[in-house]
Amino acid sequence: MNTHSITAAAIDSFSNTDDPRLKEILGSLVKHLHAFAMDVKLTEPEWFRGIEFLTAVGQKCTDKRQEFILLSDVLGLSMLTVAMNNDQADGCTESTVFGPFYVEEAPHYEHGADISNGASGQACMVQGSVKNISGHPIPHATIDVWQADDEGFYDVQKDDLDHAQARGVLHSRADGSFNFKTIVAEAYPIPMDGPVGTMLSATQRSPWRPAHLHFMIRAEGYETLITHVFKQGDAYLQTDPVFGVRDSLIADWVTGTDGLTTLNFDFVLNAEK
Amino acid sequence: MNTHSITAAAIDSFSNTDDPRLKEILGSLVKHLHAFAMDVKLTEPEWFRGIEFLTAVGQKCTDKRQEFILLSDVLGLSMLTVAMNNDQADGCTESTVFGPFYVEEAPHYEHGADISNGASGQACMVQGSVKNISGHPIPHATIDVWQADDEGFYDVQKDDLDHAQARGVLHSRADGSFNFKTIVAEAYPIPMDGPVGTMLSATQRSPWRPAHLHFMIRAEGYETLITHVFKQGDAYLQTDPVFGVRDSLIADWVTGTDGLTTLNFDFVLNAEK
Repeated sequence: MNTHSITAAAIDSFSNTDDPRLKEILGSLVKHLHAFAMDVKLTEPEWFRGIEFLTAVGQKCTDKRQEFILLSDVLGLSMLTVAMNNDQADGCTESTVFGPFYVEEAPHYEHGADISNGASGQACMVQGSVKNISGHPIPHATIDVWQADDEGFYDVQKDDLDHAQARGVLHSRADGSFNFKTIVAEAYPIPMDGPVGTMLSATQRSPWRPAHLHFMIRAEGYETLITHVFKQGDAYLQTDPVFGVRDSLIADWVTGTDGLTTLNFDFVLNAEK
Repeated sequence: MNTHSITAAAIDSFSNTDDPRLKEILGSLVKHLHAFAMDVKLTEPEWFRGIEFLTAVGQKCTDKRQEFILLSDVLGLSMLTVAMNNDQADGCTESTVFGPFYVEEAPHYEHGADISNGASGQACMVQGSVKNISGHPIPHATIDVWQADDEGFYDVQKDDLDHAQARGVLHSRADGSFNFKTIVAEAYPIPMDGPVGTMLSATQRSPWRPAHLHFMIRAEGYETLITHVFKQGDAYLQTDPVFGVRDSLIADWVTGTDGLTTLNFDFVLNAEK
């Protein structure tokens, strides 16, 4: 028995697995996990520190906080998974990470409504359209939008808040257009009071996510689009800790001579395969 | 930005890490974790199932139970780490996994004492010696021994037990010898009521560890030996879920004509480098 035979034995231990996909995933996981340990010649104290770290990550999770998603995000695994599974045609809007702050039952709004619903921040208008790759409007697309307030917190992070703020659902008009009021997105640090924050500190990494609005857009006959719109000029666009920024998703929040700030963004959905 | 550039960006995010070893480990971890996800083309629902699984593993841990060590054990990572870090000279006793049931402050016993201390099982004698590779006795070596009872439980797994059972510390005599009374080791299943047990069930893997006695032997000038002695003829020697069995660690518990059962085992320590 040597290091290679241990890896072979661990992979072989899954050989009776009924589900072929589960067998494939676990076999590959063992292969790569062992290759990692051998590449760095992991010591016993380092192995134990890893055990302690993963345990702390699990124990930080609650029904409102998912520290393992945060870990996956800062290791680039979440964005890699998004990129592998969303191979859109050129010209379609790119996908990015979902993040941990989506809520299924957000309030529905009419066009023009103020979805901030009391969240603190600088008022702005958001308007745009949902189209297909040929430029045809997609009517009645379901548009989910959510964002943090100007202190960097989503509504679900506030224990004393009993209603949705800065999130809502709209449906595109017959011409594919939509518009709503909200607050200007601002940069914010990911939660630093858990083991993932400790790791970012120990590795001198920035916790600041560049300002962004989350969108999920669904329409019959099209692939669901999960993405962000990022803010042009944000200081953290090059150092997003979750690797979510795509150049095509950066847009201007423009303040006009009337003092009103407006974001325009047009989404292009990929047809279902 | 594509899948390869995401991996490069995630590795590069650790480039300012002060501690060169931490930087090496995290960079390698990202490389192998991403290679795993790409090899199996991990889907988004599979990624989320993995997040849920790891969260459950962390949340199963308490001050008396370490489900992440159990996960590392059944994936072969623990044994691989032991093998990489204990490269003994030929003729020395082989190492195996530490396991989660060692206790620092176990009771000290004189030679011949009954360390079972009330644990249920068939009585037996254990005797042997501690020597170096040249056959010279190692006197006053600290011998830690611990084991499960005949129902498969270690003392620390019993909530209503307030004293040590089937564990103790002895010191080898001037001629390197030792002996004590205890109970015969029996096979037992690893804990199946957590997420690791669910994984073993889903993959049709046996949870049964072959019968074994744990030993940790320490002596000045020698590498600490952490190992098991396994029982010849045990039905589970070929399917140990933690990959801990080594042929050289299998021994006979011999029952004589007088009805007494005895295990003889001689340990050979590796000189400190």
